[in-house]
Amino acid sequence: MSGFRHVVMFMWAEGTTTGQQEEVAARLGELPGVIPEIRGYSLGADAGVNSSSYDFAVVADFADREGYLAYRDHPAHRAVIDHFITPIVASRAAIQYET
Amino acid sequence: MSGFRHVVMFMWAEGTTTGQQEEVAARLGELPGVIPEIRGYSLGADAGVNSSSYDFAVVADFADREGYLAYRDHPAHRAVIDHFITPIVASRAAIQYET
Repeated sequence: MSGFRHVVMFMWAEGTTTGQQEEVAARLGELPGVIPEIRGYSLGADAGVNSSSYDFAVVADFADREGYLAYRDHPAHRAVIDHFITPIVASRAAIQYET
Repeated sequence: MSGFRHVVMFMWAEGTTTGQQEEVAARLGELPGVIPEIRGYSLGADAGVNSSSYDFAVVADFADREGYLAYRDHPAHRAVIDHFITPIVASRAAIQYET
């Protein structure tokens, strides 16, 4: 089934607590119940295999580009970004591609 | 089904040709036929929605950490990295997480 995928990774700033990281995962994990355009949603913290890794990733699937844009700009998503992610981000890497 | 996911993104160096980028995708696309530990393999070039995006991503799924390590260190994978990816990489972001 073809679709549109959004992938993002974050490195957290020094001093970020485990609680803050878990809060991000918990808040993002609520979004599939709120944003119907989300077709698939996978997130996780780095498993620690390679030393140069980012700290946290989200892989989100949508039917099409419009579905992704609905997610990107959804108020519930923006609220998680503004209140829980932005305050602790040191670095961010993202891409969107057709699947 | 639980598993282990590897996600990587690249920014290509200035001057990288479309042909070089397509070669990377084609060579990586052969790996699922060569490395039996690969359970799922998705790759794609940036769709151009957001200006700050990386250029190319791979999302690879394995049964477990050992499956990922078999892929990471497989000679066929290392050959693609050495001959086609490394020469054109400007920036790389990666993470592995349990799914």
